[in-house]
Amino acid sequence: MSEVTAAILVIGDEILSGRTKDKNIGYIAEYLTNSGIDLREVRVVPDVEEEIVGAINALRQRYTYLFTTGGIGPTHDDITADCVAKAFGVPIDIDERAVTVMLERYKREELNEARLRMARIPAGADLIDNPISKAPGFMLGNVIVMAGVPNIMQAMLDNVAPRLKTGARVLARTVDAAGLGEGIYAAGLGAIAAEHTSVSIGSYPAFQSGGFRNQIVLRGRDEAALEAAEKAVIGLVQGLSSDRAPV
Amino acid sequence: MSEVTAAILVIGDEILSGRTKDKNIGYIAEYLTNSGIDLREVRVVPDVEEEIVGAINALRQRYTYLFTTGGIGPTHDDITADCVAKAFGVPIDIDERAVTVMLERYKREELNEARLRMARIPAGADLIDNPISKAPGFMLGNVIVMAGVPNIMQAMLDNVAPRLKTGARVLARTVDAAGLGEGIYAAGLGAIAAEHTSVSIGSYPAFQSGGFRNQIVLRGRDEAALEAAEKAVIGLVQGLSSDRAPV
Repeated sequence: MSEVTAAILVIGDEILSGRTKDKNIGYIAEYLTNSGIDLREVRVVPDVEEEIVGAINALRQRYTYLFTTGGIGPTHDDITADCVAKAFGVPIDIDERAVTVMLERYKREELNEARLRMARIPAGADLIDNPISKAPGFMLGNVIVMAGVPNIMQAMLDNVAPRLKTGARVLARTVDAAGLGEGIYAAGLGAIAAEHTSVSIGSYPAFQSGGFRNQIVLRGRDEAALEAAEKAVIGLVQGLSSDRAPV
Repeated sequence: MSEVTAAILVIGDEILSGRTKDKNIGYIAEYLTNSGIDLREVRVVPDVEEEIVGAINALRQRYTYLFTTGGIGPTHDDITADCVAKAFGVPIDIDERAVTVMLERYKREELNEARLRMARIPAGADLIDNPISKAPGFMLGNVIVMAGVPNIMQAMLDNVAPRLKTGARVLARTVDAAGLGEGIYAAGLGAIAAEHTSVSIGSYPAFQSGGFRNQIVLRGRDEAALEAAEKAVIGLVQGLSSDRAPV
């Protein structure tokens, strides 16, 4: 397993109320997997200071990186930057680097107190570019603070990614279960999983019109080990398919 | 605020790898909001016993209900039921009630060891019907254990919902910010939020072709208080709109 791990913290009442359907978790998950970073945990918390600070401290101490989304706009419910400062015990104030980039979008007289809230950055943080609406994200220690709006978050992720340590990429192989029910191949698959311990093997049912369509996914960083396990799974599925009609 | 609270625990490597994009969090969030249950936290953890047990115990002690999704199929990576039993410190074994409902779908001789894993239910749990593929979910104490496949999860949620305590429904009002940027109304909105403390007020930017389209959402259980806050927000937005062109 890679030594580079991560968690995501999604901040926002609107996700917990169901009003906004999160699109960031799946995007970041796939992005990290492709970068060789193991996403190990996700949490969603409300716009409540003690919840945010508690989750930041729990997760940043446990994983190589913590990615947060949401709560860095100009309104009263945007409290993420202050919570990060509190979690780290560092001061927070208007950052002149942030003001400079925001002046590319706003006139000086448009930078009212609310908009200047978006330039409040905890001491010691590095900025993360926001090519879309300019107000920056930031990285403090191992915590990466990004916007909640998906296209801004995605641009920030591209900007910060080159600064991150990455591990060996996880390789994945998918074996189609050829119409077999999980209950048919579960025993054989469990035996293969027990034998090929460096490979993580999952079975994922999905409904399609007309019934189940199951897929077996193998994941690991050692290509030879992955291939050996894949061969065993293909053999298992083929053996069972020839035994019985694929219903 | 309602006294009825909840958390969701999503269990599965496939969500953390990004291979499967979760569709359950948003669905359950909206469902609970409509039922008068406050969703306060969500976590996603991998198929690892100590992570699952730890999260179950952290969340079930903190909230009225904990809803879990995923990990109750027949394969070796389906360990949720065992983790729930371990979290509660109760035995787990094949449950004859579960076998009975599974016999509506499977012939007796098709109930091999793997499929019988889906009939393993912790002692003391009540079953949750699964009209789609029969293998049941269950409720033990305040923990509701459901499948990860969305249409099965949704059917299980409908089945278990009538057994749950619910609070007063949260009412919501949305005020369109009429093309105003968040930075224009943030100060006024913060003042309104500080004045109307029983109403939760959020501002949500969204990109659309041609620019931002911001919405201000007010949420609360007291209709009169909500209406007063809404009136104040509408007044704020109208006042600012007449001051300047809506760009």
